[in-house]
Amino acid sequence: MSQIRIHSGLLIEPDGGKLVELFVDESQRDLKRKEALNLPKIKLTKIDVEWVHVLSEGWASPLKGFMRESEFLQTLHFNSIRLEDGSIVNMSVPIVLAIDDSQKNQIDGSSSVALVVDGNNPIAILSDIEIYKHNKEERIARTWGTTAPGLPYVDEAITHSGNWLIGGDLKVIEPVKYHDGLDSFRLSPSELRAEFTRRNADAVFAFQLRNPVHNGHALLMTDTRRRLLEMGYKNPVLLLHPLGGYTKEDDVPLHWRLKQHEKVLEDGVLDPETTVLSIFPSPMHYAGPTEVQWHAKARINAGANFYIVGRDPAGMSHPLEKRDLYDADHGKKVLSMAPGLERLNILPFKVAAYDKTKNGMAFFDPSRPQDFIFISGTKMRTLAKTKESPPDGFMCPGGWKVLVEYYDSLDQAENGGVSEPVPA
Amino acid sequence: MSQIRIHSGLLIEPDGGKLVELFVDESQRDLKRKEALNLPKIKLTKIDVEWVHVLSEGWASPLKGFMRESEFLQTLHFNSIRLEDGSIVNMSVPIVLAIDDSQKNQIDGSSSVALVVDGNNPIAILSDIEIYKHNKEERIARTWGTTAPGLPYVDEAITHSGNWLIGGDLKVIEPVKYHDGLDSFRLSPSELRAEFTRRNADAVFAFQLRNPVHNGHALLMTDTRRRLLEMGYKNPVLLLHPLGGYTKEDDVPLHWRLKQHEKVLEDGVLDPETTVLSIFPSPMHYAGPTEVQWHAKARINAGANFYIVGRDPAGMSHPLEKRDLYDADHGKKVLSMAPGLERLNILPFKVAAYDKTKNGMAFFDPSRPQDFIFISGTKMRTLAKTKESPPDGFMCPGGWKVLVEYYDSLDQAENGGVSEPVPA
Repeated sequence: MSQIRIHSGLLIEPDGGKLVELFVDESQRDLKRKEALNLPKIKLTKIDVEWVHVLSEGWASPLKGFMRESEFLQTLHFNSIRLEDGSIVNMSVPIVLAIDDSQKNQIDGSSSVALVVDGNNPIAILSDIEIYKHNKEERIARTWGTTAPGLPYVDEAITHSGNWLIGGDLKVIEPVKYHDGLDSFRLSPSELRAEFTRRNADAVFAFQLRNPVHNGHALLMTDTRRRLLEMGYKNPVLLLHPLGGYTKEDDVPLHWRLKQHEKVLEDGVLDPETTVLSIFPSPMHYAGPTEVQWHAKARINAGANFYIVGRDPAGMSHPLEKRDLYDADHGKKVLSMAPGLERLNILPFKVAAYDKTKNGMAFFDPSRPQDFIFISGTKMRTLAKTKESPPDGFMCPGGWKVLVEYYDSLDQAENGGVSEPVPA
Repeated sequence: MSQIRIHSGLLIEPDGGKLVELFVDESQRDLKRKEALNLPKIKLTKIDVEWVHVLSEGWASPLKGFMRESEFLQTLHFNSIRLEDGSIVNMSVPIVLAIDDSQKNQIDGSSSVALVVDGNNPIAILSDIEIYKHNKEERIARTWGTTAPGLPYVDEAITHSGNWLIGGDLKVIEPVKYHDGLDSFRLSPSELRAEFTRRNADAVFAFQLRNPVHNGHALLMTDTRRRLLEMGYKNPVLLLHPLGGYTKEDDVPLHWRLKQHEKVLEDGVLDPETTVLSIFPSPMHYAGPTEVQWHAKARINAGANFYIVGRDPAGMSHPLEKRDLYDADHGKKVLSMAPGLERLNILPFKVAAYDKTKNGMAFFDPSRPQDFIFISGTKMRTLAKTKESPPDGFMCPGGWKVLVEYYDSLDQAENGGVSEPVPA
């Protein structure tokens, strides 16, 4: 698909007017690899590589690399960045690269550095670099609205990271691949745009998720397409877009989720003709109203002009207190007011629940609350773990089977059986 | 002055195009007082009254009262608010009114409340109210970039405040007065605009301060006027604008600072002809880069089109760690990028220090650092407390005498003498 160059006139413009891809020309790869050998080296973590991936494909357009201080400060304070022409793009989550004192000393006066993985293999060059202080406390407080210990991304990627940030222009020597059998699902924004164009989409609605799809989600997506048809669109296409980067340990791992999503399409709960299933390569912050802006903005760059926002998007429990970290309505509210997202149509999530009178998922009807059962993620996990069946019509049988298998595999691993990879 | 209605065509426009004053017409005052008697009552703290004052005079234009949730969320996440016409105004500090559960219950279904002081005296009515959750942790983290215990405003005004915020349209029954002998210095934005117009100012440069003025400050202000004259302005006027609301306990109290500022003008260190000394009624947050935007934005509303920003504006030491809470350069950087402040000319503070070769304050010359002495606020306070004299030329003798008197009065108070009021 990536070879097809199609005029994407019908699709929403990327932020900044142009999708910024940061790949080295194929003819220049060897040259750049040699160049990298002579540069100071920064060893990347798994999450750093995910950000290199995100940046290189233009999900964060018009960012040209890891943030310099002025971009970092605007992100923290304004959730948006002003471009040279005075226009504003949304940018709510810092995309930064941390280094420690000794790395900083090694870089010394060099204006470029090589970003390396697995020993010394360079995957990218960062040039015209700027090194500035990494005030972790301030970054965390302004991004998450709390500094409570136990935030998954903070524990994983910030707490033990260096006290400096390094920004600059990124050039990736070759596209990031994971060789986990799922790379074919990792369509870049440019590839997604080509695919939407190939399908003659005149509206693209994105659904961000990091959980299995149940029939309530499916109802919502099907209903959204119906509403878009009613609005006069001829061919609205769904971007079913599970997040594929870092997730916390008790989330269902990516490859199990993908299996489950494929079953949902096979079983016809979602229509494969009007659905593009692809992986969003970003790591997860669990930063609620701040992060949902990033999730929406990245999908503009991939061609989506409608975004479905749920209850408490990118939310989680407070790590210390017995409450949700964010007000469940703030994500939707903040998203609808966010600078730089004016062009995006926000579609608030209608609440679906199990309707006992219909033996299926339906939109909640507040006039007859007694007819509905809410099945929480926790409840769903408990059922799957204990191999109980959910009520008929909660999830297609094929999809449910995948979940039961996943929890089975966990039990086996706990009992010394085959261990399942969990994304770190 | 307040009676003079002058065309202020030369002055910068207020945010939103119009200065929003929230006073009840004089003819309606008795009516409104009677109306207030029948409304649920909210008892205001001293800081709440300061915010009523700020809002009523239009410093926060175009805000029409304490923030409703949509304004609060935009302030926390974007440091700016989008108006109905799509334009953006800066708003970085939440101006909110907290109530507790029992007050919320008393309000019940009423759409208006009376704001009262000293027992039951109503000073304002808040109408078309909206009550929403006061997530203190999130408010603090997003405003200060830390949740460390010991932030002065947080300890004073947030920690023990209620778990709800109440927003609405404010109408103040009569202008807020403090009867402390300083009310004549409290010019409203409208009065300041009239005064600048009366003086035929074609540029107004604001200097926010909460400390005594030494000759380094004076040099900076004098030099700014010189630069503005060079730029072609005919009559640049200085707004010398000490903050008059809540300050932390170890700051010099307002009435001593005013005395000191008056001496500086009497001694001719600053030119009274081109200086307007007035009080900015806002309480102090000590929120660094977030707060400096508020300090600048409010001065636009008072007619200032130039703003002098210093090193580490609105900063303080980290309450727990041995470092400044904010990077000393972030205030200036954030201010220069802040949404809604594009119209304001930011003048970065040049560093002044005591030049031993000139026996006076001068701009620091990095080519001969050995000639300069930096006299910190702490050093200045220590000298004044111990009645030592600072180097000649550091501060005018009249101004210095006021400081020594202030610290004398503290000693007396500590030894059981006359107690000096400290703003709470």
